[in-house]
Amino acid sequence: MSRRVYLDNAATTPIRQEVLEAMMPFLTSNFGNPSSIHQDGRTTRAAIEGARKMVAGLIGASTGEIFFTSGGTESNNMAIKCAVTDLGVKRIITSPAEHHCVKNSVEHLHNRHMVGVDLVRIDRYGLPDFAHLEELLSSSDAPTLVSLMHANNELGSLLDLDALSTLCKKYGAWLHSDTVQTIGHYQINVQQTPIDFLSGAAHKFYGPKGIGFIYIHNRCHIEPFIDGGSQERNMRAGTENISGIVGLAKAMQLAYTELSEDVALISELKAYMKERISEICPDVYFNGHPTQSLYTVLNVSFPPGPYAELLIMSLDIAGISASGGSACSSGAESQSHVLNAIGHPTNRKAVRFSFSRNTTREDIDFTIDQLAGILAMGVHAVSLPA
Amino acid sequence: MSRRVYLDNAATTPIRQEVLEAMMPFLTSNFGNPSSIHQDGRTTRAAIEGARKMVAGLIGASTGEIFFTSGGTESNNMAIKCAVTDLGVKRIITSPAEHHCVKNSVEHLHNRHMVGVDLVRIDRYGLPDFAHLEELLSSSDAPTLVSLMHANNELGSLLDLDALSTLCKKYGAWLHSDTVQTIGHYQINVQQTPIDFLSGAAHKFYGPKGIGFIYIHNRCHIEPFIDGGSQERNMRAGTENISGIVGLAKAMQLAYTELSEDVALISELKAYMKERISEICPDVYFNGHPTQSLYTVLNVSFPPGPYAELLIMSLDIAGISASGGSACSSGAESQSHVLNAIGHPTNRKAVRFSFSRNTTREDIDFTIDQLAGILAMGVHAVSLPA
Repeated sequence: MSRRVYLDNAATTPIRQEVLEAMMPFLTSNFGNPSSIHQDGRTTRAAIEGARKMVAGLIGASTGEIFFTSGGTESNNMAIKCAVTDLGVKRIITSPAEHHCVKNSVEHLHNRHMVGVDLVRIDRYGLPDFAHLEELLSSSDAPTLVSLMHANNELGSLLDLDALSTLCKKYGAWLHSDTVQTIGHYQINVQQTPIDFLSGAAHKFYGPKGIGFIYIHNRCHIEPFIDGGSQERNMRAGTENISGIVGLAKAMQLAYTELSEDVALISELKAYMKERISEICPDVYFNGHPTQSLYTVLNVSFPPGPYAELLIMSLDIAGISASGGSACSSGAESQSHVLNAIGHPTNRKAVRFSFSRNTTREDIDFTIDQLAGILAMGVHAVSLPA
Repeated sequence: MSRRVYLDNAATTPIRQEVLEAMMPFLTSNFGNPSSIHQDGRTTRAAIEGARKMVAGLIGASTGEIFFTSGGTESNNMAIKCAVTDLGVKRIITSPAEHHCVKNSVEHLHNRHMVGVDLVRIDRYGLPDFAHLEELLSSSDAPTLVSLMHANNELGSLLDLDALSTLCKKYGAWLHSDTVQTIGHYQINVQQTPIDFLSGAAHKFYGPKGIGFIYIHNRCHIEPFIDGGSQERNMRAGTENISGIVGLAKAMQLAYTELSEDVALISELKAYMKERISEICPDVYFNGHPTQSLYTVLNVSFPPGPYAELLIMSLDIAGISASGGSACSSGAESQSHVLNAIGHPTNRKAVRFSFSRNTTREDIDFTIDQLAGILAMGVHAVSLPA
């Protein structure tokens, strides 16, 4: 079997063994419906409430402020749509570099004339211009939701959540932050940094897919986005994905327990890859903020050349999984809305390499070797797999 | 370990071993994000598209009409809410015996003045009065969605989907049916029985929790309910729950492959339990239609007595998991909206026993013995578990 190196951990991570082990009882013997009052139901309900307590504790929230959802996308839809329908929000301030689930939720509401939208200017790193944000905030008394992501999923740039929180508080705006790329990778404490809504997805921190959570500050009295039974304290209906919930909590616990080691390990790998890439291709530059950026993401802008158009595919054929942008976009190799928003030249090719606790120096070396070959030879003779 | 008998399969079923085996690769090595264009992503995308084809084939749909969701509740929310926001539906006709996810979705829209609502009369089995439905349909030209469940989850009563489909077609109404209790247990073919929206949840037919699907007739041009990336052919955003999707398809395939054996086995168990209960307690009667009813559900109305209030709990202590109604309600032992809607006397106690392919005659015998003891002795000396 030929070697494969997986450098697309911002798209999704594998499930950790310990996480899978925690999930297994809930995929086998502990299968009761948590809404059932009998023993089989009480067992799984206890597991869910234990998971909720764990997640809440890890971000400084109360247990009653954490609700499990099917993932980050649902969480972000819920925050944005319910803020408009239930909190009386008349204006959303967001940026042109948000994830599709935020962008399209805002557009959904805007197209239906349910909310006004102001876009805050971003810099070349994809970070919002806080002076412009303050200008926008001070320009209107309309009840406002600010929705800005903590870290950009394509570029890695990290905004200053504390400063954002302070600014929103000053102008009485509600604050939603898509924290899908940072939960499990950065300490977030909602007591120290007041936020109204934040979101997490287990599969970004070595948990299973199809499960996430939303934190909702207890001052936000919203209605369910998904109506039905009284699950999740009447806030999110539907029989609970128990194995997923248990897996999410276990993964998040492990992530924060081992955070400092992971940060050290992965930061070093990123720095090493940055250095090696600059050696083999001096014409590269790096997208995203040079210092305020995810340690897990390295977005490289390769110079124009015959290899550029099919670079992701050539890497794939060489055994390397990397991304041309968000995995949530269409799969086509066109430049993303984020790259367009920061004015990335279309004749250059941006590749996002993203690392995990499983990534090794050997993986980087292998990738550099393959990359050197691709850059030297131009386009590989590609035959597309079916 | 004391014996436990699980008779709450309408609330949820355990995962079949074969299903778990099909899921495992997607909880371990095959973890790529299906939206990634590299090999890791293509592997999981192929699995999802294979699952979609399987599900579509089993109900006579086109592949492009099946969308995976987080479960039956989300599917039903999507059908009802998007019919109103995107299809121009101005009136919903539904019944007072629908599942909470339908009832509350309709109320959500009604409370926001987005739609008018007419309730069709139901009979004592919880089945809609088709003459009244026709009266309602003919009384208005407003674009109408009819939302009526195929089988009542508490009572088991099965409506005539063919007759309903014909009636809706005659009056040009859109038709949604909550088929969560029947998918995997009854043959449904959307070519023979035209329906606009139907829903399924894997955990009702030996698949995992947290995954379901919606069938949307290709004549229904709706927008996503959950906005974001282009997953599920731009109809349902969010990184896919791949292991869940694969598990759903496998469970549904097995369910239909072995349908006739399961029907024969479970029907016989239901008949046996009905007979035995009547023997030990001649004052019982059975809720739900005597013949047009789920073979998996037996809803028993016990006569008034000192044991009645805590009957579910007494059964639980005796080792039997049964339900007082839908597991999706609050968990409190109060009478459900469904029982209220059919005029079930509040001094009697309704218990839903629901069976699976794992249920045995010995399980029934054990249950009858325990039940006889409880009925004879009145209330058990219960000490509630923490």
